[in-house]
Formats: sequence, structure tokens, C-alpha cells
Amino acid sequence: MTQAVSVRTAADSLIAALPDGVVLTAAESIERYRHDEAEWAPSGRPLAVVRPATADQVATVVRWCIEHDVPLVPRGAGTGLSGGANAIEGCVVVSLERMTTIVRIDPVERLAVVQPGVVNDHLRAAVAEQGLWYPPDPASSPWSTIGGNVATNAGGVCCVKYGVTGDYVLALEVVTGSGDVVRLGTPTAKGVAGYDLAGLLTGSEGTLGVVTEVTVRLRPARAPEHTVVGFFGSLVAAGEAVAAVARSGVVPSALELLDRYCLDAVNEWKQLGIEADCEAILLARVDAPGDAGVQEAARVQGCFEQAGASYAARSDDEAESDAMFAARRLAYPALERLGPVLTEDVCVPVTQVPHMLARIQAIGAEHDVLVANIAHAADGNLHPLLVTPPGDEAARSRAQAAFAEIITAALDCGGTVTGEHGVGLLKRDGLAAEISPAVADLHRAVRRALDPHGILNPGKVIA
Amino acid sequence: MTQAVSVRTAADSLIAALPDGVVLTAAESIERYRHDEAEWAPSGRPLAVVRPATADQVATVVRWCIEHDVPLVPRGAGTGLSGGANAIEGCVVVSLERMTTIVRIDPVERLAVVQPGVVNDHLRAAVAEQGLWYPPDPASSPWSTIGGNVATNAGGVCCVKYGVTGDYVLALEVVTGSGDVVRLGTPTAKGVAGYDLAGLLTGSEGTLGVVTEVTVRLRPARAPEHTVVGFFGSLVAAGEAVAAVARSGVVPSALELLDRYCLDAVNEWKQLGIEADCEAILLARVDAPGDAGVQEAARVQGCFEQAGASYAARSDDEAESDAMFAARRLAYPALERLGPVLTEDVCVPVTQVPHMLARIQAIGAEHDVLVANIAHAADGNLHPLLVTPPGDEAARSRAQAAFAEIITAALDCGGTVTGEHGVGLLKRDGLAAEISPAVADLHRAVRRALDPHGILNPGKVIA
Repeated sequence: MTQAVSVRTAADSLIAALPDGVVLTAAESIERYRHDEAEWAPSGRPLAVVRPATADQVATVVRWCIEHDVPLVPRGAGTGLSGGANAIEGCVVVSLERMTTIVRIDPVERLAVVQPGVVNDHLRAAVAEQGLWYPPDPASSPWSTIGGNVATNAGGVCCVKYGVTGDYVLALEVVTGSGDVVRLGTPTAKGVAGYDLAGLLTGSEGTLGVVTEVTVRLRPARAPEHTVVGFFGSLVAAGEAVAAVARSGVVPSALELLDRYCLDAVNEWKQLGIEADCEAILLARVDAPGDAGVQEAARVQGCFEQAGASYAARSDDEAESDAMFAARRLAYPALERLGPVLTEDVCVPVTQVPHMLARIQAIGAEHDVLVANIAHAADGNLHPLLVTPPGDEAARSRAQAAFAEIITAALDCGGTVTGEHGVGLLKRDGLAAEISPAVADLHRAVRRALDPHGILNPGKVIA
Repeated sequence: MTQAVSVRTAADSLIAALPDGVVLTAAESIERYRHDEAEWAPSGRPLAVVRPATADQVATVVRWCIEHDVPLVPRGAGTGLSGGANAIEGCVVVSLERMTTIVRIDPVERLAVVQPGVVNDHLRAAVAEQGLWYPPDPASSPWSTIGGNVATNAGGVCCVKYGVTGDYVLALEVVTGSGDVVRLGTPTAKGVAGYDLAGLLTGSEGTLGVVTEVTVRLRPARAPEHTVVGFFGSLVAAGEAVAAVARSGVVPSALELLDRYCLDAVNEWKQLGIEADCEAILLARVDAPGDAGVQEAARVQGCFEQAGASYAARSDDEAESDAMFAARRLAYPALERLGPVLTEDVCVPVTQVPHMLARIQAIGAEHDVLVANIAHAADGNLHPLLVTPPGDEAARSRAQAAFAEIITAALDCGGTVTGEHGVGLLKRDGLAAEISPAVADLHRAVRRALDPHGILNPGKVIA
């Protein structure tokens, strides 16, 4: 009781240390900041939610948390799928949602400087106006923020050819675990002055610092893409086509897999009019300029046909191919309408994709769990989605067993437990299974080094 | 005296702990391992040189160094230019030169697994046989090793379009500062399981662990390149052409600058027959496939002409263009023949290249130092080479003053003190000037975390 009162008093001092309206403590306000999209992960009740406008305000919160030994949970848009942004009981949630300024776009140096709350699609649109391209395109791009993308090292559809968020981070402004505002990395094209701390912070899920500004590398706008669609009679056949594309030497700019469950769920919800009488479709894009692109498209189509596609064609109808990629993007929310979804994110060697898809189906059948599949297939990054009927606790428990078994299967074939969603809370056991105890010790040592007071998102990534 | 005897006894125990011939202690043998190519940096006399054949042997050395509190200096081919591999008085040098096996090349997963002593060009040739390409191409590629490239996060000619060594490191086997053999990273196309420790080790110059195996990402072989050559009446005009290429939106696969001093030195040495009556040449390559490549070449040529080139042309003569790039590669050793060379490696925003080249010329004139220039120009990565007559101490001292002033000038225009050579010993002051005290503290904290016994290349990067 004494503790509770002392913290209450302390929250008053936090409110007093920041401008009016920056700190929220009303129950109904803070309830909205309890968790991200990983609804199966536990979350606590925050003591307060802070919505800072500047790095200095973030530093004030960090110092307050150190002084009062209160955990701090940074948060972007809350679209994460591993519970990395879930509140810890009695924590302060720092939501970067107000820091939405695109500070600078430089078309000659090909970089942009943005605050962490800038939405991915907003940045992409702003740079496109200047003939530039910011490639990282997670499915959450209409909502997720650059800060959250950096915290999770987010991937997306085009990363098979163009890399993930970390490949575009040049420099960061960060509030450290000691409450200092520092700049890491360099905005120059190259730079090896000291350790790659900007790279270390990227993907660290708010456990090593709070990102308050991001300098990203940009590319020139690219040539128009060609789309190739393939329909397959089984998941495994689609997986064989993916491996065939890898063998062909073509690096597609996208190669996405959707199974029948996903297509049906999207069609029921949005009536996109995609008719696919098949078990799985592959959506490929290639973007080599000129004739080379046409040749690449033909080779991908050939791979689909050789793997036994019931239908494979280059789509020259932009509206049709955009609708298919929209279906890919909508698959997750469409399935969520059917019941709680437990999202997997394993990533395996691309030659293991057919085997792994077969294992996932077998595991689903064995545990009597509906498993829908979407995948960044050419990366080997699979997203089996375990859907359970609302309120069915027995089904949830079976889904959790299947989830653990899929992780084991991925590790068995040389994969990793998380390709792009991060460890958060849901993959802590998986991470522990993936890395050796000595590597876990290195993680703890790095964490103590950068979060000496133990206040930055404690309990996430590593228990 | 007691200390010296006790260490001598200890070296005997090191010899005993490893197979015959692995440890060298004869004065004439170890003299060869005292320093890298940064001849201006100080070096001590190693107690012993170890040439291990396995990661376990490296671990044995690390544990021995911990037990005896002896510094360990890891070393590749010794082509470094910052003194990172220079011996420390009484240290053990660990030369990875015997670990030269290419363990695996996987053309479908597009990766290779190599031991650290594999020479860069050997790897490039081996993967080329399978239609693959390992892009990082430092000028030292005929001699430098992948382990050394990882330790320095080496760049090269094509990184303006294809990135640096770190962009190709998927996973590492590392002997930690505690003597554990660990695996960091994942061989899958994507992976965010835990902190990016493989990325942190890359470029850490042997201060955070000893790399014993490297898994690198590969690309499919690319389309043939087109070469465009431009001759310019001044360094600054060449710099303006570089900025013009950046503005054009073309991303060249190479854009190298050589000034008259470099051309003359190479011509005198190798008689390559390159006649260039000008102050600087630019060598550009573009590699978009098909017609797109021809168009890119034309745009680069247009940029050269607009910037006032006295001659600009696409070279369709492969022998001629290869000779020019060979000259670029030979510039450094050619200048070394003239006297001790102090090599700069600043990297500035590409729009600052003309300004920075002018500043470098002015600083050279002011200090009466011959400054030759080569540059990965499109990255803004400049290599002013300060050449002094052999034995002229006054000239050395003037060169050192010019070196410091060039660093200050680079920082003043938003650059970094090292684009690709690393901090080693020569850039420690520069690094301290570049990063804030709080960031220096983060470096020290990370170092203590990963090198808890303080034995890994102490005194390098950060004093």
C-alpha cells in the first residue's frame, strides 16, 4: 500500500515535469495503450502514458523512471505482433505518436530525416513526390510508424530484393538508458567510426534506448513492376515453385504466398472479386528495367508452371494485380474477424519452404487447429496464422501447443523463430531455444551495458 | 625482470597447449607480424604469434590470454590502413592466415560459408564459377581476407550501389572475450531473433571477439557493366561532376576519382599507357541490364560534360577500361614507392565533395605537403594520400598536422573520420572528435560487456 501511494505521488511529479497534456493517467485513456496486436501476449496496466513532443521530454521521462525505478515501455502505433509494446504492470508507456514531423528529405544525398511517429506510408508518399523510394513495406505500412519499424527491424514484401528496415537506417537520435540524448551512426553513405550502435539499436525492441529521430537511406524510384500470378493445388506445390524461383537466379521484388483460407476470408470481408479455385496462390513481382523485366517475369512464370501450377500468367492488368496484393495486405485483419489469431513468423532456408509448409499443415491437423498461411515466401519467412473460435479455451490451448511445435520444426530445418516480427513476449522461449546459453549471456551483458538501470522494456526479448 | 620471466614461462604453457608449429616465438618470425600497412601508427613487439587452424585453438588462446592477462591482437592479411592489427608490446598476435577453407557455397540459398583467412578475390572467383557474385571489393581484394574485411567492415569500389561488407554478413562464428565459441546471426534471408550481435561484431576491429567463420550473402551474377571515363581540368570540377551524377538519379556501380599524382605514379611504375593530360579523371561504371544500362551510361557522360570535362566518353574497349580500374587499384602501392604515405579515409555528404576536395588542396598547400587523391567519389569517401620524402621528419610532422586538419574539415561539413578503413590507432582522436562523450561512454560499456577481461585488442578504436 505504501508502495502504491509513493508511486502515485511520483506520477504527480512526472506530470509536473512535463508540459500540460503530455502525461495521461485517466483509466480510460491509458487502457488504450495496454497492448499491441499480439493479443495472446499478457499485458499489465500502465501507471501513466506519456506522449512526448521532443527528445528532451523523452529524456525527462527516462530520468524520472530511473529515479523511481519504474519500467518504461516505448510504443509506436501498436501494430506489433509479438507483444514488444505491451504494457508492464505499473510502467510508464511512452507513445511517440505525436512526433510526426518529416524533418527533411534530401533528394541528392538520398536520405530522409524523420521523427519516430511518422507513418511508414506517409514517408513513402512524401519521398515518392521527389522521385525517391523508401523500400521497407511491412503489411502494416498504412498504420505502423518508422520508430516502430526501427524498433522491430521490420521487413515487408519487397525485402527479398531490397532488404529490411535496418538496411535503410543511416543514423538515429536516441535517448539512452541513462537519459542522455545521443546521435548514433552517420548520415554519410559509408561510415565505420566506432561500433555500429545504430545497427544494434535497430531491432532491439525498445530495450536498449528510445529512438527519437531516424535518418533513412532512400533509393531512386524504380522501374514499373511486372506481376506474375500462379494458382496451385497444394501448399507444398506452391512451396516447390518458390524453391524453383530461387534456383532460377531471378530475384523477384516480391513473392508472396496466400492460401485458400486467407483468400476466402478476404473475399468474404471485402468482396475483392478474386476467384481462385485452388489451395494456394503465389503473387510475384519483378522490376528489372525494360526487356530484362519481361524476361524475368517469363522465367518466374516458367518456374510456376514447372512446379505444377494449375494456372500461371503475367498480369498486365494493374487493377487486378493491385487487388491481389491488397488481398495479401488484408489477410491478417480478415482472419482476425474470425477469431483470435496467433501469428507465427518463422523464417527458414528457402529450399526448406516446401518441407516446412508440409510440417505446418501436419502440425495443424495433429492439434486440430485451423492454420491459414501467408508468407514472404522467397525469404522463407512464413506466417502460419493459428485461428481459434472466440472463447474456445481448449482450442487456444491446442493452438499454443501447435505454435511451439512449429517453432521447433523451423529450428530443426535451420531456421529462426522470428523473421521480422521480433521476440517481444511471444518468442522469448523460442529465442532461448534458438541461441546458445553463451549467446544469451552476451545479450544480457549488452543489455546491462546500455540499460544500466534496468528500466527499458524489462522482460521483453529476454526474461 | 620477474614479470618478463613469468611471461616467458607462460608462453611455454601456450606452446604446450597447442599443436606443434601453431605458436611462433622466434624473433625473426614474429617481426613480420608487428604491423599492418599503417606504417605511421606505432607497434609493439609481440610475445608470440599464434596461427590457429580451428576455432577451438583460438578459444584456447583467448583463455590463455585471460589467465595471463596478456592482450590478444587478431590479424588477417595485415592490409589494414589504420593500425588496427598492429601488435601491442607483449601481446599475442592471432593470425587467421591458416583458416583458408571455403566451407560451402550454396547457389540456391545464395550464401557462402568461409573461414576468416579466405582471400577476398578467392571467394569472389569461387562463387563466380557458380554464377554468383560477392560484391564487397576493397582495393586490397587480391590480398585481404574475409575475416579482416569483416573486422573493418570493408568497403570498396562497388559499394556505392551494392553496400559494404556488413551488408553481406549473415552470420558469424566468433570466439568471445570469455573464450566461448558462439554463433551469431542466422543464415536465413531474414531474422530478428535477439540483438544484431553479428552486425555489432562487424567493424569492431577485433575488440569484441575473434571471428572464426563467416556466412556471407551472395547475389546472382549481374549484367555486364558499361564504363564511362571523364578527364577534368581541376579536382573541384571532377567533384562537381560527382555531385551532378548524384543529382541525376543514376546510381553508378562505381564512380572513382584519381588525380594526376596517382596517374603519374602508376604510369611510371607499371607503364599502363594511360595518357591523361588533366588534373583528375573519373571512372564510372553502370550496370543496369540491357538498354537501361546504355541510357545510364549516357546520363553519366552528360553529367561529366556539363561539369566541364575536357574529355568524356563511354569506353567500349574492355581492355582499356580494365586498365583504368587497375590503375585505381594500384594507386596506393604506386605512391608508397615514392615515400611513406599517410592515408586519409574521410567520408562526406556527396554534395560536399567539391568543397572538401578544395579544402584538401588548400590544406596540402598550407602545410607544404604533397597530397594525392583517390576517392570512392560517389560515396563521398575520399582518400587524400599524404606523401612525404623518405627520412624527412619535418615533412612527416607537417603531414600529421595536415591529416588532423583534413579530419576537422570533414567533420565540419557533416562527414565522418573514417568511411571504410576503421579507427585502429590512427583515427582514435578523430573518433573522439566525432562522437559525443555520452556515445564514447556507450562504446566503453559495450566493450566491457563483450570483453570483460580487457584482453581483446586493447587500445584500439577507443583508448
